[in-house]
Amino acid sequence: MTEFIPPGTRWIDLPSPFPMKRGGALHGARIACETWGTRNAAGDNTILILTGLSPDAHAAANEANPAPGWWEAMVGPGKPIDTNRWHVVCFNALGSCKGSTGPASTNPATGEPYRLAFPELSIEDGADAAYAVVRALGIERLACLIGNSMGGMNALAFLTRHPGIARSHINISGAARALPFSIAIRSLQREAIRLDPQWNEGDYDDDHYPESGMRMARKLGVITYRSALEWDGRFGRVRLDSDRRDDEDPFGLEFEVESYLEAHARRFVRNFDPNCYLYLSRSMDWYDIGESCGGTTDQGLARIRVERALAIGVHTDILFPLQQQQQIADGLRAGGAEAHFLPLESPQGHDAFLVDFDRFGPAVADFLA
Amino acid sequence: MTEFIPPGTRWIDLPSPFPMKRGGALHGARIACETWGTRNAAGDNTILILTGLSPDAHAAANEANPAPGWWEAMVGPGKPIDTNRWHVVCFNALGSCKGSTGPASTNPATGEPYRLAFPELSIEDGADAAYAVVRALGIERLACLIGNSMGGMNALAFLTRHPGIARSHINISGAARALPFSIAIRSLQREAIRLDPQWNEGDYDDDHYPESGMRMARKLGVITYRSALEWDGRFGRVRLDSDRRDDEDPFGLEFEVESYLEAHARRFVRNFDPNCYLYLSRSMDWYDIGESCGGTTDQGLARIRVERALAIGVHTDILFPLQQQQQIADGLRAGGAEAHFLPLESPQGHDAFLVDFDRFGPAVADFLA
Repeated sequence: MTEFIPPGTRWIDLPSPFPMKRGGALHGARIACETWGTRNAAGDNTILILTGLSPDAHAAANEANPAPGWWEAMVGPGKPIDTNRWHVVCFNALGSCKGSTGPASTNPATGEPYRLAFPELSIEDGADAAYAVVRALGIERLACLIGNSMGGMNALAFLTRHPGIARSHINISGAARALPFSIAIRSLQREAIRLDPQWNEGDYDDDHYPESGMRMARKLGVITYRSALEWDGRFGRVRLDSDRRDDEDPFGLEFEVESYLEAHARRFVRNFDPNCYLYLSRSMDWYDIGESCGGTTDQGLARIRVERALAIGVHTDILFPLQQQQQIADGLRAGGAEAHFLPLESPQGHDAFLVDFDRFGPAVADFLA
Repeated sequence: MTEFIPPGTRWIDLPSPFPMKRGGALHGARIACETWGTRNAAGDNTILILTGLSPDAHAAANEANPAPGWWEAMVGPGKPIDTNRWHVVCFNALGSCKGSTGPASTNPATGEPYRLAFPELSIEDGADAAYAVVRALGIERLACLIGNSMGGMNALAFLTRHPGIARSHINISGAARALPFSIAIRSLQREAIRLDPQWNEGDYDDDHYPESGMRMARKLGVITYRSALEWDGRFGRVRLDSDRRDDEDPFGLEFEVESYLEAHARRFVRNFDPNCYLYLSRSMDWYDIGESCGGTTDQGLARIRVERALAIGVHTDILFPLQQQQQIADGLRAGGAEAHFLPLESPQGHDAFLVDFDRFGPAVADFLA
């Protein structure tokens, strides 16, 4: 039961108790936060970034932690999210294991990790936590709210629950509700973790860790985060060199693509808490802006009040498919925003925003200019 | 270690020894076979059907077994593959557990099931076995060779290794070589089976059966056999009724799509042998008509000699994507065939040929007419 907290992380306390949408409340919970750039005198230049499932708050290098962040190419002086101009804030998601309170954190009522005693987590809880932190930071109104993937869901929940909180919004590879293909994928990932005897109903430790389940979940994730098109060009049918193969294993790794999945899994499995993974994954399945607002998807989106918006998607994304970003743009426009839909031709699928900076950089920079 | 053999199955012995492409040989091996209709006097009206990974030879009801078959809507009197006109033959694949010799069959050298002692299985071995059976049945030349999915690979191998053996060919949702996305999916399915402690390096029995691994493999299969588009319309975000939910399980089934996957898995896991699954799955990864023929994919396809051909694919197929059937049609045309590519708008993905008879029926009937 380990948390993975980058150096230089700053914490902001949530109101205590912090009520959870599906029942229960957190006591003494907090959100991990990093910042770049400087707030201007008017206090109207803050951009908030809400992340996908796995990243921490360390989006880019800063004074507190000069190591490169997960969005290093996007955030910094002169970069698309230009920290010479903008005050940029990134939060680790509520329920994560990377600094914010989640199932791997200590439950103050017991002194032990929450594990499955953590209350049911919804996307709306993440949104409410982010709102509380924005307020605690003394920010009246965001210049822009950027949400990627799961963070795109959090951002929509944030904006519907707190109308007027942001002047503009960029939704990247997000969705206004989970659809059955994505639910099926995530359900299978969770099943892989839960089937691992080492998961032990959430009661594992570093010596008894559901490594096989996490490996399966991550590999299935990577398959759905990228695209067949990219892999055709990148791996084709190239085999591993014989010194990288185990000839004793009749079903062992043989193709480069299998080795790529294995490497991704190895980097992930011991660096993310399995229970946190289960909670965050489930929260995405539950999200439906229409259910959340008591209406249709379009009605939910039309309740959002922003001046300008951009929904970016990628043709090759099978997990948050392009029509979901189209729907976001259309819905925000129906709510009165000057909203644009930008489909990109990236081959990298859902993960394109993490790697295809030639396309995502100008798209974000142009909107913010 | 169980085989699943439909009543009325007929067996044809393979030459013994039967050499395998990647080494080793089978002794006393046989292929399960079913037939419909009557051979004409000229002996030129036989259609051979080669199946996907899991079906048996019972494509449709016949005298020996009146139960409906897996392609009942396609094969029979007056149906698209009209048994009033055609003599139709279907083989269970070499390496399967449904009648033909495979890893679940008894190894005559030991009297025990082969399990992992079965020689490495390739698509070409399946093709050579099919060819041997065609010859044993006294068929000089097929009127048409139809191959679905994995059977589409077997059919291409059959045609490259035995030029002129068929007058015409229908390739349905097949591929001339495995691409990395499909390899990744199948690799993960195999890993799920192998990770199950009950798999036990292939040495399981009915009381110690890798049920969890097979369930994971089948669910992942079903996810890739259908399509997001179909599921959006079919399941949306519909929840299970409360009496079908286990409220004690915090990550239990909640959405209809999860229950659908579970039902598919339950029907499959005890009805297919895990080792056979591993062997057949791996054989698809290995298949590459170019490697097999010592040239490019297009060169391999252009070696095939048929008069007419039809390659049918489906827009929503993510496992054998449409461009692979386009490539088959183009390659066969380059080899001199009158070859057509027919992309269908079925929402059902790779499995469409098993369910979308409104589209597949006329397509096959028109070609055979």
